[in-house]
Amino acid sequence: MKALLYDNELKLVNNYEKPIPKENEVLIKTTMVGICNTDYEITKGYMGYHGVLGHEFAGVVVAAGDKAPKDLIGKRVVGEINCACGDCSWCHKGLERHCPNRSTLGIYKKDGCFSEYFTLPYKNVFEISDNIDDITATFVEPLAAAYEILEQIHIKPDYKVAVLGDGKLGLCISLVFSAMNIDFVHIGKHENKLKISKDAGAKTMLLSQLTEQDKKSFDVVVEATGSVGGFETSASLVKPRGVLVLKSTISAREGLNLASIVVDEITIVGSRCGQFAPILRLLENNKINVKSLVEKIYDVDDFEEAFNKNAEKGSLKVLVKF
Amino acid sequence: MKALLYDNELKLVNNYEKPIPKENEVLIKTTMVGICNTDYEITKGYMGYHGVLGHEFAGVVVAAGDKAPKDLIGKRVVGEINCACGDCSWCHKGLERHCPNRSTLGIYKKDGCFSEYFTLPYKNVFEISDNIDDITATFVEPLAAAYEILEQIHIKPDYKVAVLGDGKLGLCISLVFSAMNIDFVHIGKHENKLKISKDAGAKTMLLSQLTEQDKKSFDVVVEATGSVGGFETSASLVKPRGVLVLKSTISAREGLNLASIVVDEITIVGSRCGQFAPILRLLENNKINVKSLVEKIYDVDDFEEAFNKNAEKGSLKVLVKF
Repeated sequence: MKALLYDNELKLVNNYEKPIPKENEVLIKTTMVGICNTDYEITKGYMGYHGVLGHEFAGVVVAAGDKAPKDLIGKRVVGEINCACGDCSWCHKGLERHCPNRSTLGIYKKDGCFSEYFTLPYKNVFEISDNIDDITATFVEPLAAAYEILEQIHIKPDYKVAVLGDGKLGLCISLVFSAMNIDFVHIGKHENKLKISKDAGAKTMLLSQLTEQDKKSFDVVVEATGSVGGFETSASLVKPRGVLVLKSTISAREGLNLASIVVDEITIVGSRCGQFAPILRLLENNKINVKSLVEKIYDVDDFEEAFNKNAEKGSLKVLVKF
Repeated sequence: MKALLYDNELKLVNNYEKPIPKENEVLIKTTMVGICNTDYEITKGYMGYHGVLGHEFAGVVVAAGDKAPKDLIGKRVVGEINCACGDCSWCHKGLERHCPNRSTLGIYKKDGCFSEYFTLPYKNVFEISDNIDDITATFVEPLAAAYEILEQIHIKPDYKVAVLGDGKLGLCISLVFSAMNIDFVHIGKHENKLKISKDAGAKTMLLSQLTEQDKKSFDVVVEATGSVGGFETSASLVKPRGVLVLKSTISAREGLNLASIVVDEITIVGSRCGQFAPILRLLENNKINVKSLVEKIYDVDDFEEAFNKNAEKGSLKVLVKF
């Protein structure tokens, strides 16, 4: 089968062995895959991962292992990407996403969805209705990561909230926050991207419009720029005793001054993958429309063009069709 | 009067003007002052502060402004260092320590206690009983900063907790945690300092004894080393979804990798000054003994020697007598 492999270089192979689902797994035929910046980072060495890329997908279950429910076969699905052991204290607490024995689809110890077929534990798989098309389905994973913020902290209705960064991540957070009736301002550098946010109901602001009055004025600030500068701007906007949600991995070992975090007793909350169920409820009820986040859809054979487009500055979500 | 001034250089002046208490202030005659590392940092430019140093003290009230209670006169006192406006939303919430209009004794816009006399708002002042001697009293401020952790986060009885750093700050935290029956291990580099901790009831461990098993195993880790290395070690010890308390300002713009904070969804809680009342309760009841934290007591005229001793690597608390 066709599979997009990272193995010190990115290459499409045509004869990759089709996987056989383990007893607790299902085999999924891929229909659509989203390129995530994590995929791009893997091609730069992130996680030391070698294997099939991809973790944002829409697909159809075509086979099931012995202990997987057969009635999933034929169903259109999306799937959570952390494959947990089910046996440890983390799994018992419902925090499979933090299982120390986990593998992660297309990121860590498990081939991803950038191939014609791939496997996932049946417990990770969520059936989707016809109401959710394939394009929308590929956004469930990044939208769930945005929703994770609302699992971790309680954003009260009267809170003053800001989201910093108008890339794909910031836009997903904005769409979720608008859907959840949070009173927030989306701050970014690009008028065209902030327009997407505004059209979904958000208040928006250019970074250059921030004034001294905005400093130390927000109860919650979500950092979604991934840059040290963004981190420091975010920290400067948080009220004393407020919360800074760190949504993007700041991976460079750059200078970072944490003194204001101590002086203003700010809480920083690291935030990663989220649950799919609440996002599927929003999508089922048409409360989020992701179509304006799509940059372009490529055929898998044009993967190089697709990855180049994804790497372009300012590019929105690039999807790949199987 | 004598006053120890920082004005691009540290100098003892003999003819500094004795302050007159404002209507809501009391005048305090200093008996004992502690040198804090913040004092040392101010002499290196921290906060851009110029004025009389000092914010850890024991003293006696000798005069009161028109609106300050007269019955404080003659009382031995300690005092909270943040002088708030009393009028803003922070003050109304009981968070005077975060009042944006505040001055801070010997740190920001208010002459400190390193002088024969100084003033504080009467609301900042706490009478102490004879049970608390002058040496112990100078420790109330740093102990309150340690106790602040317990105001900010709920450390449950079954939590696995570590305190990293066996300097003065780490030792104050250790004494408070032991007094509060927290099950924790104090991790440091110096056997002689950890012995102080152990004698107060703590479990202790040399940094070099940490193993792979300790990684990601603590519910709460308190970072009290003030170094980037200490921050990264602390972060590596925290469980996914655990809490890293940042107690020391990491002021250098050194490299710092926050990726694991996001991946393991760690919460970082910045923590600064605390309330005096709970510490005074502990001290009244002899639940903390600070005597082993005293390095040496100097006469104010020997301030240079005192500051040099404080700057010595491994030095414990240096006190200055008036």
